[in-house]
Amino acid sequence: MERIAIDMDDVIADPLSKHLALFNKRYNENISIKDLEGKYLTEVRPELHQEILDILAEPTFFRDLDIIADSQEVIKELSQHYEVFIATAAMELPSSFTSKYEWLKEHFSFLNERNFIFCGDKSIIKADYLIDDSPRNFMGFEGQGILFTNPYNLHVTDYVRVNNWQEVREFFLK
Amino acid sequence: MERIAIDMDDVIADPLSKHLALFNKRYNENISIKDLEGKYLTEVRPELHQEILDILAEPTFFRDLDIIADSQEVIKELSQHYEVFIATAAMELPSSFTSKYEWLKEHFSFLNERNFIFCGDKSIIKADYLIDDSPRNFMGFEGQGILFTNPYNLHVTDYVRVNNWQEVREFFLK
Repeated sequence: MERIAIDMDDVIADPLSKHLALFNKRYNENISIKDLEGKYLTEVRPELHQEILDILAEPTFFRDLDIIADSQEVIKELSQHYEVFIATAAMELPSSFTSKYEWLKEHFSFLNERNFIFCGDKSIIKADYLIDDSPRNFMGFEGQGILFTNPYNLHVTDYVRVNNWQEVREFFLK
Repeated sequence: MERIAIDMDDVIADPLSKHLALFNKRYNENISIKDLEGKYLTEVRPELHQEILDILAEPTFFRDLDIIADSQEVIKELSQHYEVFIATAAMELPSSFTSKYEWLKEHFSFLNERNFIFCGDKSIIKADYLIDDSPRNFMGFEGQGILFTNPYNLHVTDYVRVNNWQEVREFFLK
């Protein structure tokens, strides 16, 4: 059975919308998803770099994130034909461990927690495919990288791109 | 550069001594490491199965574990010749995430946290070697499994065995 590793943030969970909403509210800003085309929020407001990162480091930030549309249904379907693992670079934000785990147990309860990976460098993952929004996670990955669209990766052209979970289904179950 | 993945519990950290000491104290028992030859504590006292596991689930249990002798020095040396990752099956005990992370940052501060992996099924690890005390973690692992001696694995004969960190040095740096 082939194995698919799936990133968490901005692929099945949506930290970006919450991050942006909290940032706009706290700093009286009005930045939209559209303003983030090709860049990170820290690049749009470099003078607030630390403040922007601090929002993500709040222990419950990741606990109540929205689910990316159709990810549950499609992953449930994929699990019948592939081994599915969820791999998140949680080592960058150790305060997020518990929230991320609880979020996964709540929304992806059909997956076994033995298939969750909190890592840093994703080149350690042994899988046939990695669905991720960060092209840097494909460096050193031995399988095929599949880029999940996000505002800041819109200009990246080196990988197969999927714009939503229906396109993921298309790719794997066509 | 070849890559070595190293298990945490009973390979670089010593939960067993603390677990046994706490158990003996709380339940007025006198079980020794010697009594655990070829078996787990839960097999020696099956009537206290849940109580034994509950000790491990206490959130700070893993925070102050002793370091397995010579592991720091040898891993520091190995890092000069190999890529070293620490891979622990933390998904079995989600309450341990923070303590395990802090313990690693304290005692193995020379390793980058990008090289820490909290996982379940270790067949997801892509590495040339895995040093582990649980033979089941070698199932599906594509590299070479190296069994680190522990009382309950004393009768296992299917893998290269190392009895201590000097023997690990011997194996990798001879």
